[in-house]
Amino acid sequence: MLKKDDIKPAKGVRDWYGREALLRNRVRDTLQEIFQRYGYVPLETPVIEREDILSFKGGGEIQKEIFKLSDQGKRSLALRFDHTLPLARFFTTHKELKKPFKRYVMGEVFRDGPTQPDQGRYRVFSQCDVDIIGVKGMAAEAELLTLASDAVTELGLGKVTIRINNRKVLDGIMDNADISETSKLQAILVLDKLDKIGVEGVEKEFSALGSTVISDSAIKKLIGNTLIEGDNKEKTDFLHGIISSEKGKEGLEEIGHLLDYCKEMNFDFVEFTPSLARGLDYYTGTTLEVFLENKEVIDSALLAGGRFDNLLGDFSGSDEPIYAIGISFGLERICTAIESSSLNGKETTTELFIIPMKTMAQSLKRAHMLRKEKINTDVELNGRSLKAAMRYANSSNIPFVGIIGEDEINNDVISIKRLSDGMQNKVKINDVKSYLKENR
Amino acid sequence: MLKKDDIKPAKGVRDWYGREALLRNRVRDTLQEIFQRYGYVPLETPVIEREDILSFKGGGEIQKEIFKLSDQGKRSLALRFDHTLPLARFFTTHKELKKPFKRYVMGEVFRDGPTQPDQGRYRVFSQCDVDIIGVKGMAAEAELLTLASDAVTELGLGKVTIRINNRKVLDGIMDNADISETSKLQAILVLDKLDKIGVEGVEKEFSALGSTVISDSAIKKLIGNTLIEGDNKEKTDFLHGIISSEKGKEGLEEIGHLLDYCKEMNFDFVEFTPSLARGLDYYTGTTLEVFLENKEVIDSALLAGGRFDNLLGDFSGSDEPIYAIGISFGLERICTAIESSSLNGKETTTELFIIPMKTMAQSLKRAHMLRKEKINTDVELNGRSLKAAMRYANSSNIPFVGIIGEDEINNDVISIKRLSDGMQNKVKINDVKSYLKENR
Repeated sequence: MLKKDDIKPAKGVRDWYGREALLRNRVRDTLQEIFQRYGYVPLETPVIEREDILSFKGGGEIQKEIFKLSDQGKRSLALRFDHTLPLARFFTTHKELKKPFKRYVMGEVFRDGPTQPDQGRYRVFSQCDVDIIGVKGMAAEAELLTLASDAVTELGLGKVTIRINNRKVLDGIMDNADISETSKLQAILVLDKLDKIGVEGVEKEFSALGSTVISDSAIKKLIGNTLIEGDNKEKTDFLHGIISSEKGKEGLEEIGHLLDYCKEMNFDFVEFTPSLARGLDYYTGTTLEVFLENKEVIDSALLAGGRFDNLLGDFSGSDEPIYAIGISFGLERICTAIESSSLNGKETTTELFIIPMKTMAQSLKRAHMLRKEKINTDVELNGRSLKAAMRYANSSNIPFVGIIGEDEINNDVISIKRLSDGMQNKVKINDVKSYLKENR
Repeated sequence: MLKKDDIKPAKGVRDWYGREALLRNRVRDTLQEIFQRYGYVPLETPVIEREDILSFKGGGEIQKEIFKLSDQGKRSLALRFDHTLPLARFFTTHKELKKPFKRYVMGEVFRDGPTQPDQGRYRVFSQCDVDIIGVKGMAAEAELLTLASDAVTELGLGKVTIRINNRKVLDGIMDNADISETSKLQAILVLDKLDKIGVEGVEKEFSALGSTVISDSAIKKLIGNTLIEGDNKEKTDFLHGIISSEKGKEGLEEIGHLLDYCKEMNFDFVEFTPSLARGLDYYTGTTLEVFLENKEVIDSALLAGGRFDNLLGDFSGSDEPIYAIGISFGLERICTAIESSSLNGKETTTELFIIPMKTMAQSLKRAHMLRKEKINTDVELNGRSLKAAMRYANSSNIPFVGIIGEDEINNDVISIKRLSDGMQNKVKINDVKSYLKENR
């Protein structure tokens, strides 16, 4: 027997019902419409993947958080922790796909890690991703920034800041600070915590790595050069002065191209942010994160992404790079942001609540006719009293009730009452749609 | 290093891309619209549940097929195998919910069992469920049949048969065959295989249970009485003659009420089918299954469901029955049925493919303007030659390309070419939407 205390969701996950679920649908629908407007094609990959696919690469810190399981045939399986490795698996095995390959995907991902519900962080959460495979130039980045900006506007998120950086630039900055090749990924993972633990916290974590990994002077140089202030031009100018490696220069050139595109599009909300690290090890070039300008609402990135030109090549064993870039919208965080800014959601989508007065079969038939006209209609199925049924409709925020008794049947009408003010009229079945529209 | 042969989906699961994924979206959107039209409110529950919730009850045969896993805190978890137990968990812990409680849910469920891809049967598959909690009478059944009939019509599935039965009737038939209380569930699970293995197969499985469970004469009686022929009235009349238990009579009365509703709605496609068993052990009353009339396309049920008046009470430890009934649409099977009947799906939703002739930044800007007007627009991001880009658009089934060179920029136009016949015109940016509409 299940104990009362055991009847609850698993740790770190939650349900979404009513107003919250409707908001999630609205956000997904809006994103999907925008993705299609930009020419992305839908892909659905399964929640369960082979474990060797998901642990192949990527993730860095995330590898520890993979949920593992096996089937009755003892095969090693895992739940996807993002949509990028499933994309790599799909693309690698579908040679017929044309490049550029632009796909979107929406679905839950799973991480067995710490949760933070007030920041929309759970163990099961939804990501909506768009990726472009096969474009080397910054036109891909420019398109994704445009798409992100449209999404922010159409979702009503208010003002945002888009931070951009480039792993090659970060590489050049690390070269300048004499950080060795083998320590670079560790340094990036620490730098990634800047927003969460601040400069002092990052300095402490760097020191804890020990001076063989990163010296005190390197820490100072790295933090100083990534946190430089100024506008985008001042920052690139400064970094041109200290970055000498080929790779670092290439990164600066890419950032320059991308900022040119932003100028053409009048995107004054794009901020070159050399300290932006991103915790995934597969990024190779551009990285980006989108934040609300008002960080009091939510201070994590609503969407984020980057370029991963090596992952697909590594995956398929090819020596040629397969260019790829993608961004990922965090559904829960976006919903948290929207909910915090407006609280006027609907609890139901029902417009009319039919109350049969001992006319159940005929009422069901009439409800069916109204539904055929696309009127969202509910029926009092228990045959409760008029008073009880009205109370139910009222507390469910349904705007109209329709009473159907013998008299209404004989005259082929419905007595429709507006619950906000009690206005009541007999309306012919064929006129219900326009009546509801006019009197809403 | 991942071997080439290892790069594939896990056993029994698959990807959905392009035309197939668009069809899945269309089916989900249609169902969602219908669910809301009937007053159902959305619920999303997580894929991962506590194992004790999912193994509490329900499933019968399905229990063996539950995917189990644990988190870093060694908690016993499982992947949901249907949406009914998560609903029970949700409803039991939300005392504020008003009855009748009508919710819909759409999402993947997981079963570690045999697969049958040609019948749309996988280990990860999607179910779209509507359930009503808190209605005792057959009005709930009637509403769900109406909803199912609307869904079948609007999805374009063609003619269907809806089979209905009632567990209490089946119970009465088993009493008449002298099958003991303790053997009834076993008998139901065998009878459920009738469609798959035929009468002879069922007889064999019954015999294999041994005569202490079910005698030869009982087998004969049970099969004979459940497979009676005739119209709905003839069948109920016959069963009134052989069923004597209170419970069985109650079941026949319920079937009678439901058939009366069907007459009122002119549902001549509803067939009372006393042999209909359904393999889940939590059903208590009405059961139903919807099949295509043309079984050559797909011979499994496209949607199915039933009444489970005890599950919620048992779950919450309540002695009062909590009335509940639900139906579940099988997304993969419905898509298989639609695909088999028509093959004219679209591979892309893109209407216009912009080809920049050395005008990438300005072309991206113009594409952005067109997208603002809700024109689904893609751009040649690699700056390939006109010929290569045209070939790409053509092979992607995009109907129009828009060429933007210096000349077009200076005159604020786009040269739009219809790929079906090569017709080409210079079109002002503001006129593109109406131009595409007129010339599609």
